[in-house]
Amino acid sequence: MNWQERPRCDETPAWALLQRHFAQRFAGAQAFDLRLAFAEEGARRVERFSFDAPGVFADLSKNLIDDEAQRLLTQLAQQCGVEVLRDALWAGERINTSEQRAVTHVHWRCGSNQALALDGQAQVAIENIASMRRRMAEAQSAMLDFADAVRADAGITDVVNIGIGGSDLGPRMVVQALRSAGQARGPRVHFVANMDGHELAELLPHLQADRTLFVVSSKTFGTAETMQNAASARAWFAAQGGRDVARHFVGVSANTAAVAAFGAGRCFAFDEGVGGRFSLWSSIGFPIALAVGRASFEALLSGARAMDQHFTQMPLGRNLPVQLALLDVWNRNFHRFASRCVAPYHHGLRRLPAYLQQLEMESNGKCVDVRGRTVPFDTAPVVWGEAGSNGQHAFFQMLHQGTQPVPVEFVAVRQAAHALEGHHDRLLANALAQARALMLGDAGDAPQRHFSGNRPSTFLVLDRLDPAGLGALLALYEHRVFVAGAIWGINSFDQWGVELGKRHAGLIERALGSRGETDGAAGDPSTAALARRLR
Amino acid sequence: MNWQERPRCDETPAWALLQRHFAQRFAGAQAFDLRLAFAEEGARRVERFSFDAPGVFADLSKNLIDDEAQRLLTQLAQQCGVEVLRDALWAGERINTSEQRAVTHVHWRCGSNQALALDGQAQVAIENIASMRRRMAEAQSAMLDFADAVRADAGITDVVNIGIGGSDLGPRMVVQALRSAGQARGPRVHFVANMDGHELAELLPHLQADRTLFVVSSKTFGTAETMQNAASARAWFAAQGGRDVARHFVGVSANTAAVAAFGAGRCFAFDEGVGGRFSLWSSIGFPIALAVGRASFEALLSGARAMDQHFTQMPLGRNLPVQLALLDVWNRNFHRFASRCVAPYHHGLRRLPAYLQQLEMESNGKCVDVRGRTVPFDTAPVVWGEAGSNGQHAFFQMLHQGTQPVPVEFVAVRQAAHALEGHHDRLLANALAQARALMLGDAGDAPQRHFSGNRPSTFLVLDRLDPAGLGALLALYEHRVFVAGAIWGINSFDQWGVELGKRHAGLIERALGSRGETDGAAGDPSTAALARRLR
Repeated sequence: MNWQERPRCDETPAWALLQRHFAQRFAGAQAFDLRLAFAEEGARRVERFSFDAPGVFADLSKNLIDDEAQRLLTQLAQQCGVEVLRDALWAGERINTSEQRAVTHVHWRCGSNQALALDGQAQVAIENIASMRRRMAEAQSAMLDFADAVRADAGITDVVNIGIGGSDLGPRMVVQALRSAGQARGPRVHFVANMDGHELAELLPHLQADRTLFVVSSKTFGTAETMQNAASARAWFAAQGGRDVARHFVGVSANTAAVAAFGAGRCFAFDEGVGGRFSLWSSIGFPIALAVGRASFEALLSGARAMDQHFTQMPLGRNLPVQLALLDVWNRNFHRFASRCVAPYHHGLRRLPAYLQQLEMESNGKCVDVRGRTVPFDTAPVVWGEAGSNGQHAFFQMLHQGTQPVPVEFVAVRQAAHALEGHHDRLLANALAQARALMLGDAGDAPQRHFSGNRPSTFLVLDRLDPAGLGALLALYEHRVFVAGAIWGINSFDQWGVELGKRHAGLIERALGSRGETDGAAGDPSTAALARRLR
Repeated sequence: MNWQERPRCDETPAWALLQRHFAQRFAGAQAFDLRLAFAEEGARRVERFSFDAPGVFADLSKNLIDDEAQRLLTQLAQQCGVEVLRDALWAGERINTSEQRAVTHVHWRCGSNQALALDGQAQVAIENIASMRRRMAEAQSAMLDFADAVRADAGITDVVNIGIGGSDLGPRMVVQALRSAGQARGPRVHFVANMDGHELAELLPHLQADRTLFVVSSKTFGTAETMQNAASARAWFAAQGGRDVARHFVGVSANTAAVAAFGAGRCFAFDEGVGGRFSLWSSIGFPIALAVGRASFEALLSGARAMDQHFTQMPLGRNLPVQLALLDVWNRNFHRFASRCVAPYHHGLRRLPAYLQQLEMESNGKCVDVRGRTVPFDTAPVVWGEAGSNGQHAFFQMLHQGTQPVPVEFVAVRQAAHALEGHHDRLLANALAQARALMLGDAGDAPQRHFSGNRPSTFLVLDRLDPAGLGALLALYEHRVFVAGAIWGINSFDQWGVELGKRHAGLIERALGSRGETDGAAGDPSTAALARRLR
């Protein structure tokens, strides 16, 4: 099968069989019940639906799925050509078809000396890939050298990363996670993303211009928010008497000319093939390197690389990213669940849901397939969540007793990086208890105390929250998104949906700035009325 | 109509009429289209669906709703007895029926010298209410005096609020918001909520024991997370050589005996009738008072009080909390939208969605009505979101081009509290532009650039993010949740759904602590296998 001619999920034999199987076993009064399934299958069910991948263990057994569904779903992945698209990704084919680009983030974590994982793909331009990887490894090495130099420079106490979307969410979350895990011992690393000036204005009074390094991070170096914040930071720097802009501003961008024009003294570049939401492995990871240093950054890459090997080499039936993606498809297109709750039971992972919102919803929140046809099924669900155990005291009421089930994804970390007694066992017990309560339910002695149970959840376990484990987890999520997109037949690597709002923003900004003459520019009566009120 | 005998929404004449109207005008190929509605109705539509309330302006016109639906929905509110339940709330009736308690948070913001808003309700125990309010006002005044004394004490540089759920989300969000708005000039106020020890462990190295005040906040003073963190904080305090526990630990609780037993020198009490998620107005607001001082705390209360007056006095058809709740019912039960995205376009409100998750989903994420019957319709949707403009670079792709519409609630603030040029107009323009793009859509010159449009949104405007404006906004949300619960016929003030997980947690904790002997306690094969892996 050619990667360009892969069928869409609903064009495969497996899809029709899944529909029939779902109707027979999962719909209506005799529907599948997790408690019965465990009573019948016992520990075999856990074995069947548990997956070991490098750094991450996953138990999918408490989902509304059975052997036959899992078998058919694995066939679905095969029939949709997930493997050929995966190989095309690694081979540097232009699988981001709407932008005619290869997708290169995986190569940033390969290192120049890593053997290609592809076996005998005749059409693969091995030499091109190898030379691309060498360039990436060189750029990365220069970035890491500079990061370690800044870390060794007692004159720099604070770093401010100015970036938004993929230039913010991934690095911010990774720095938070590794800081919680006690691994960030470099300068203080701050993040400023929002066009809202309150974010930057709140930070500036805590900084000293001559001790601060600003990192301006934007693939195009034209992102409105980022350039606005960068300009304000540079103006503040000058107003504070800062003179050496070139020393105190660094650019991270694919547009090196614009970085130089801005006045930054250095630019860490990367290629156009790195999508923002997949970019933390590339030069965009510079604030991570500043926070944790070269060795830890390389461990992050190596963890991701181990997951890449799992993804490229494991048969579909034991391939964790594939199986998670198939569960996502099963939950979305058959059970029709509209959202998935991600509950990381670790303070350091409290922004994992925000990171996943971009990764999943920007990649797969689309209704047109790669051939331009409107898809007749649902794609990415809403992804949302908060750190556990906090969520238990907020929205878990609804997860247990709301009118519609919401699948929950627990993420737990076996070892704590702190020495406080009593916390960690109780934290883990709470995660397990919530998953168990969702499944088992309880008859209760009053209607208000009745829990229907049979509510699905997935349980992911990291051994520890170190750079390698985190790298593996994030690569797992990337590949899962890729596989779901491949099955749905959509392009997970473009984001045309962000363009229309940008176009309107320019017009409305002019209307807001004016004093009434250009109401027409704001267009519809609602927008015009709101613009009058806001100015 | 007696408040105990109110009909449930699906038992009213209006409900059946709404179903018919929805089927005729909002379903199928000839379904309602926002663009046509604006073309036909013009500015009249904006007037019809705009509402002015104290501190908050709301434009609901870009929702999939028409005059007739709004008229019927307002009848629905009346037929469900929203007004009588509202009056019973203010009259101190035990409307939290499953716990046999009155609901008293609104009285905490009334002040002892405020006239009762109820006119001639014969059955109202006016004198009881008045004396309760006097007690509340006295407790509040003592709390505010102490907060100002701490603020004036240069020896205390840091405050750590230890609390979770309602003892965390509201105060944390309000302190963040008012800090962004430049209003927090007291000691640094930190928040620790999670059972996960990484949260506390990360903070402790930044504190000095003799300069820190710990506030331990729990209604029962038995919340597992809070007592664990409090015990660890007290142990750390002693290990640092701290001796005066009574001076450095304050309790906020309805259980004053337990606070004294813990060793805290002071307790700011409150009554059992204050639900956690509605409690920031009560003594639970102590960290807010520490951050912003008495005058600002009183302004927060006065803003809420102004919204209370709007809610108790405005006719249903012009009553903003009522109209927002009716829109929620319309979106949930007729359009069947499973979630609502909240997009606060202000860095200071970045945790508003997390706060609303508890407020809405813990209050109304229920499937049993006040009479114990399973409801045959959906209740609270998933509430989720992130600050704008950040969300535009994360999940807005899906909002514009995903397969299912998600109603979006924009919250914008007219005036900025910072002096950075160029940011605020562009921020507001972006909010308006997103709402407009969702509605208008775009044909596009390629399938990937097609936007269907007709996607609903609500736009809320605060004049400024000051204590009064924020108080009004939060009271608005509280009442909206109350009204939706009243229409669905559920008890918005209990939370039985959080109990089952707690019961399991104790058993599993023992299994985790052991070395295999008590696997049975962990119960099902999945939990037992995960417990073995995690210990």
